Amino acid sequence: MEFPSKLIENAVGELARLPGIGRKTALRLALHLLKAEMDTTATLAEALAKMRFEITYCKTCHSISDSEECGICANKLRDHSLVCVVSDVRDVIAIENTGQYKGVYHVLGGVISPIEGIGPSDLHIDSLVERAAAEDSEVREIILAISPTMEGDTTAFYLSRRLRDLPQVHISTIARGIPMGGELEYADEITLGRSIVERLRQAR
Amino acid sequence: MEFPSKLIENAVGELARLPGIGRKTALRLALHLLKAEMDTTATLAEALAKMRFEITYCKTCHSISDSEECGICANKLRDHSLVCVVSDVRDVIAIENTGQYKGVYHVLGGVISPIEGIGPSDLHIDSLVERAAAEDSEVREIILAISPTMEGDTTAFYLSRRLRDLPQVHISTIARGIPMGGELEYADEITLGRSIVERLRQAR
Repeated sequence: MEFPSKLIENAVGELARLPGIGRKTALRLALHLLKAEMDTTATLAEALAKMRFEITYCKTCHSISDSEECGICANKLRDHSLVCVVSDVRDVIAIENTGQYKGVYHVLGGVISPIEGIGPSDLHIDSLVERAAAEDSEVREIILAISPTMEGDTTAFYLSRRLRDLPQVHISTIARGIPMGGELEYADEITLGRSIVERLRQAR
Repeated sequence: MEFPSKLIENAVGELARLPGIGRKTALRLALHLLKAEMDTTATLAEALAKMRFEITYCKTCHSISDSEECGICANKLRDHSLVCVVSDVRDVIAIENTGQYKGVYHVLGGVISPIEGIGPSDLHIDSLVERAAAEDSEVREIILAISPTMEGDTTAFYLSRRLRDLPQVHISTIARGIPMGGELEYADEITLGRSIVERLRQAR
């Protein structure tokens, strides 16, 4: 694609480097910005730069934060004995949106992936073990809420090995099963099999 | 969706104002930028701002340009007697990519749309008429290359009315018909009908 202006070519090139945005979409976005008020572009550019340069990470859970300690870790009303381990900040947001969880988090920053060259030392795993093993640690349960992919399961397995020498800490994983509204006949065999083996007994 | 940081919330809000980008995609883009090098965000923000603030429009054809006259209008090798009228810069890029057109362009900046409140005076129509009617005008043919939608056809009709008093200028429209690789049986009736009425006689 040839562009009538170097300025637009640059902008399209940069936009097209974002995940899921090809050159056609990038051009549409660039032309949208050109048609909109100048303020729109200025605000967008500033918001992106400000986010990237000023964001900090919580020193305890490594989640995104505006200060040294994130709002969840600083909240005394949350249950600090319960730590939910997730790979990404997106998972924190997703779990928070359920409104069902009152514990705190630990963000690994990814999952173990030999193909992408990500090993345990690239993730916040040591700090999780330290956090759980510290003498004054309040942690009593660690929930592994990691996506059940090949890499996710590897990470969860590695974590449970690293954490099994801590007798005071229970390890659990989020339940696997048929999603709400899901049809049994369309569920994959592994999920359906696990949902029977790990069935919930109804209270009487 | 609640965010753990105001900075991320702002960035997601601004990204989600772009067309075709919802809040989930915006969050994915923001987290991608956070994981990437700082340079990535800086370059993106700068490219967007530079494009918006420094872009100029060609004084002749109103296409996007880096200077007062765009590369196409300034090119002496192009046929300046042939003017292709399009609604948008995107159409210029699309036609240039075919490599089949050697004339020049005139970008209207939109189409007549009473619903969106866009009238003829909001478009670069007067300057097209002036360009074709000027005493020293080289223009001999004006090709209306406007999308065959309701608004596009209205605009084309309006243009041909405005231009019909210029005896030295021929008006043409791009051919309508079955697209290459298209199946006759799936073509809509209007297109198929027009492709028969306006059939091309083969050279012998």
